Amino acid sequence: MGEQGKIKVIFQPSGSRGEVDKGLSIIEASRQLGVDIEALCGEKKVCGKCKVRIEEGVFQKFGITSRRENAGEWQAEEEKFINAAQREEGYRLGCVAKVEGNILVFVPEESRAGKQVVSKAARDIHIDHNPAVKLYYVEVEKPTFEEPTGDYERICREIEGQYGLKDLKIDLFALRQLSAALRKGDWKVTVSVWMNQEIIRVRPGKCENSYGLAIDVGTTTVAGYFCNLNTMEVLDTISLMNPQCKYGEDVMSRITYHMMNPDGLERMNNDIIEGLNWLIDQAIEVTHPPKKKKKKKKGEEGPEEWVEVPEEGKTYLRLTREDLEDITLGGNTAMHHILLNLDPEHMGLAPFPPAIHHSLNIKTRDLGIKINPSAYIFVLPNEAGFVGADNVGVLISEEPYKKEEMQLIIDIGTNGELVLGNSDKLISSSCATGPALEGAQLQFGMRAAPGAIERIEIDVETHEVNYKVIGRDAWRKYSEPKEMQAKGICGSGILDVLAELYKAGIVEKSGRFNKKEQKSNRFRKNPDTKQPEFVLAWAEESSIGKDIVITQKDVRQIQLAKGALYAGCKLMMRRMGLEKVDKVKIAGAFGTHVDRVKALIMGLFPNCEIEKISSVGNAAGDGCRSALLNREKRKEANWVSRNVEYIELTVEKDFQNEFMAAMHLPHMTDEFTHLQGIVTDEILHQK
Amino acid sequence: MGEQGKIKVIFQPSGSRGEVDKGLSIIEASRQLGVDIEALCGEKKVCGKCKVRIEEGVFQKFGITSRRENAGEWQAEEEKFINAAQREEGYRLGCVAKVEGNILVFVPEESRAGKQVVSKAARDIHIDHNPAVKLYYVEVEKPTFEEPTGDYERICREIEGQYGLKDLKIDLFALRQLSAALRKGDWKVTVSVWMNQEIIRVRPGKCENSYGLAIDVGTTTVAGYFCNLNTMEVLDTISLMNPQCKYGEDVMSRITYHMMNPDGLERMNNDIIEGLNWLIDQAIEVTHPPKKKKKKKKGEEGPEEWVEVPEEGKTYLRLTREDLEDITLGGNTAMHHILLNLDPEHMGLAPFPPAIHHSLNIKTRDLGIKINPSAYIFVLPNEAGFVGADNVGVLISEEPYKKEEMQLIIDIGTNGELVLGNSDKLISSSCATGPALEGAQLQFGMRAAPGAIERIEIDVETHEVNYKVIGRDAWRKYSEPKEMQAKGICGSGILDVLAELYKAGIVEKSGRFNKKEQKSNRFRKNPDTKQPEFVLAWAEESSIGKDIVITQKDVRQIQLAKGALYAGCKLMMRRMGLEKVDKVKIAGAFGTHVDRVKALIMGLFPNCEIEKISSVGNAAGDGCRSALLNREKRKEANWVSRNVEYIELTVEKDFQNEFMAAMHLPHMTDEFTHLQGIVTDEILHQK
Repeated sequence: MGEQGKIKVIFQPSGSRGEVDKGLSIIEASRQLGVDIEALCGEKKVCGKCKVRIEEGVFQKFGITSRRENAGEWQAEEEKFINAAQREEGYRLGCVAKVEGNILVFVPEESRAGKQVVSKAARDIHIDHNPAVKLYYVEVEKPTFEEPTGDYERICREIEGQYGLKDLKIDLFALRQLSAALRKGDWKVTVSVWMNQEIIRVRPGKCENSYGLAIDVGTTTVAGYFCNLNTMEVLDTISLMNPQCKYGEDVMSRITYHMMNPDGLERMNNDIIEGLNWLIDQAIEVTHPPKKKKKKKKGEEGPEEWVEVPEEGKTYLRLTREDLEDITLGGNTAMHHILLNLDPEHMGLAPFPPAIHHSLNIKTRDLGIKINPSAYIFVLPNEAGFVGADNVGVLISEEPYKKEEMQLIIDIGTNGELVLGNSDKLISSSCATGPALEGAQLQFGMRAAPGAIERIEIDVETHEVNYKVIGRDAWRKYSEPKEMQAKGICGSGILDVLAELYKAGIVEKSGRFNKKEQKSNRFRKNPDTKQPEFVLAWAEESSIGKDIVITQKDVRQIQLAKGALYAGCKLMMRRMGLEKVDKVKIAGAFGTHVDRVKALIMGLFPNCEIEKISSVGNAAGDGCRSALLNREKRKEANWVSRNVEYIELTVEKDFQNEFMAAMHLPHMTDEFTHLQGIVTDEILHQK
Repeated sequence: MGEQGKIKVIFQPSGSRGEVDKGLSIIEASRQLGVDIEALCGEKKVCGKCKVRIEEGVFQKFGITSRRENAGEWQAEEEKFINAAQREEGYRLGCVAKVEGNILVFVPEESRAGKQVVSKAARDIHIDHNPAVKLYYVEVEKPTFEEPTGDYERICREIEGQYGLKDLKIDLFALRQLSAALRKGDWKVTVSVWMNQEIIRVRPGKCENSYGLAIDVGTTTVAGYFCNLNTMEVLDTISLMNPQCKYGEDVMSRITYHMMNPDGLERMNNDIIEGLNWLIDQAIEVTHPPKKKKKKKKGEEGPEEWVEVPEEGKTYLRLTREDLEDITLGGNTAMHHILLNLDPEHMGLAPFPPAIHHSLNIKTRDLGIKINPSAYIFVLPNEAGFVGADNVGVLISEEPYKKEEMQLIIDIGTNGELVLGNSDKLISSSCATGPALEGAQLQFGMRAAPGAIERIEIDVETHEVNYKVIGRDAWRKYSEPKEMQAKGICGSGILDVLAELYKAGIVEKSGRFNKKEQKSNRFRKNPDTKQPEFVLAWAEESSIGKDIVITQKDVRQIQLAKGALYAGCKLMMRRMGLEKVDKVKIAGAFGTHVDRVKALIMGLFPNCEIEKISSVGNAAGDGCRSALLNREKRKEANWVSRNVEYIELTVEKDFQNEFMAAMHLPHMTDEFTHLQGIVTDEILHQK
């Protein structure tokens, strides 16, 4: 415990932490620390939406020991919502459990209020239709004493005759359905075949559709695209925080967690698998109308179940986990290894060799992923220890190897991954940007959710601040203070803040606060830390009852990130003998929201004509989706993973010098001044 | 309960049943009913060897309801030997638990005294060495910053360079060992590759050996051959009763059990998998010296663990389940389906189509078989609903399709399977012999274990009986009565009994006891059933304190079996247009022990020169072993399974007539008289 009667509380996965009064409910504590927990009933202990989990153990990083008993005694009201197994795992109701001693509280995805604004939506990219799983409808003859051939051979003969597919194998779990399906469908069945090689499902009657999921496992966010394999339609996009965040925010801290804990890998593996199963549940739930009785649509052929919901005037397709017949998945090499339960220790040690580069086809059942038990998961190949399958996803989505122009592709996630090249040559590397550009690790950093500052303007004369938050169209200067309900700064607001602070002279070229030129009381020294900080939003404009500030440490974090990125780009260009690139593509959620002009001004990447800079959204996820819908992309992925040359930046000559130099903010050149005009125009235009 | 104070007890898997006095211990009851339970300590409750399981439920077949509480109260002494999980399953100590009410007692393999005489030993047949799993030793370069290729690609490159194997896949579980093995072995590893396609194991250092198991799953007996895949040596032969026996003695009753019970298939599947895992444990245990501390042998290379046992002057190889890297398995179609959890209902209904003919390669982990988790089990293909993978095993072992002579191969198990043909044409069929020829379903039928009557002679003049039991060399007439310790009749004694009864005129051609010509008090009417019976051994010669008799019903069972077999052979010969075959081969345990002359006399199969009749032992098991040690045999198995024409005998014209006619015992021809001489010589010769 800190001061008298104060108790340390840490909320995960957001990482928000602080000290609160002893005896508060966990929900009250979460409010004080800016964490939103769902509580539909207003803490009347009747909705059960505020389930949280109290973690047990020593958390050195936060300097606390968390014990379940520190959350107060179990109450009878909790029984209704928390079963014995969950109770065993440490689940409590946030409105009932109390802060009696230091605790680390994990807030499960479903208990989080203010859902993240999904920035990982699927883009409209061209994909050729050639899924790994295809359906074949066959009508076969009944067996007789003259021709008593077995059921499987009977089906294979028909598929070969009608569709020319030979030597099909069959998965054991599909074989178990086969005899019953043939008889139930009166000897007419629909057969799902994987890669022209293996029967993975047999359904009675004629079925038209099959479904799949493309998953991008990021260090911080996991995104899933739920697709109809036949129509190629994206039926839903689902995302969740990577549940491993509680073990550390970046890749290296997860690897360290594994190395320090005998069951570390197993825990992280269980968590991500549990997360993927949650995501799968969400995907199929979309197709379920809530609490309506099912009714078959007239004239519907085959066993696909349609349900009408008269109130909504809609018809839903009722799907089950069995209906998901394929998954493709990409992630950085550490996420890849942890997901597959491969020891990530060696890829974390120089020279960072992964256990495997090549893609893998694994039965989902072998990973505990609960879809059709015969289905495969295609795991994209890795380029290197720190440029993983996620980057391969970016490559097969953007295809720089099919163009003559020199493209620089920057994928900014918790780690930065860079690719440079064209049809002649491709090189890649990674740089430790840290999660600052995504809003993490900053004092008031937060996810892109309602209340997050996403755009900002600072008056050069007065240092007054005008800003916009997610979820409200009107800017600060057109609003009453209390209407703003600001809560923090998200990734896309970060660069704005730094650019504006610099432009207004509040921050110097070195990144230090300019202590002489301050024009308002927004600049101050924090009474506790004695460090300089600048107030972006006053407490009265916030929903958390506190001034939202940017600190000297925050500015340093952003500088480190942009310095690493810039130095990386520069060294890669030098390797390729380039002065300038033809195109810059920014991938990732950051790329979607960032103001490309400010990014250029702030020196995130080397000079490029502004119209040649574009955002390509979650290109890693798009790559996974191409591989889901077009099996040829899987071959392409393996080819490119071994034909892009990985460069280890940290051992490059001059890396340290370049990095130090790139940390500084750029000179105010003419170009800068010109671009400044554009920036202002753009901002005004958006108002 | 039957008469006052009498309680019904059934012992499984032997099926022995009867009424005993209330309050007896289970061991005492087992003795009265001729069941041997291991009890090393003489029922002093200290050895724990007499563990039995009390089954719970209604057993209509036996007309009882068995309840665990009917076995008396749990006693403190049992705690030491029976853990909580076993107690939950109904385990008790046989010397402690009492017969308080009707019970069905399952005696686990390990508690059975008088282990079966293994008649399924491996024969010395020629097999080309080409196992599915082969070992490759490689030394690879360490990764560097210049060459940081992943571990898997590094190994593949070396295997391709040295051994020419391309495009190897890797099993996920093997991939999980790979990085650690490379580092532990200082970049030298031994890689197990399956079918030139997939890496299934990576061990540090140089290893010379890998191991496999060939398994023949019979309806009654399961036999396993534990082999060194490198030297082809059979290290051990292990057999156990098929634990499914409690659900029914033959194939149809197992299928019926599944159809009548919602969880029937699951139970039977669990039981056989549990049985196979027990068998695997036995296989690797052979290599473990009992309770000695391990010590590495000097100069031993690689990680294989050798242990010296000075007292025995031997060195043992210490193996684990991981060291078993391949399994091949054959069984009749019903055993095949139940093992794979495939619905056996359809193959039990006309026209009896199996779910699949083709062989299957299944990951052992998908079946719950606990060997190396990446290993495959190769399941041999089926010919038809009632001629299964076991018969394919017989075929690839005997290879009649490579000879010009017409061979008739008879595999007598609980079901009879027949093959006839040569390199031009092969036909097969099955006949419902029932288990009588194996000694089951007869009143005093038993397994080939000590105390079983295996040879018999009846004096034509006096009807006195002379016999020999397993475990004692001296015949009855050279022994004191109490020395015999007879217990029952095993399969190989059955034919002797019938032939002798017939020869002595005790039984007529029709199979009925000849009520007029009896010459001793051995012939009598059973006081309870009022049915005629003949005493083979008096109570004083037995270990069970009862006269061992053969009843009219027993004779009928044998007649039905031999009639089915003979009619089957005859119809097949007619199909092929044959009067006589060139060779008769008898496979199965029965074939090993049967007196081929008596078999011919009794008309088990059509006429053939005596020297052309041979026993080929457990040819089904030998076929599994060939497929284990020579992958080419796997292709051959698939080819032959689809190139032998299956004939459904029951729909053949004249089947019923042939069957009825074949039930009769053959005429006393000259040939018979001549052969009789041979019989006596043979018997005398064995004395």
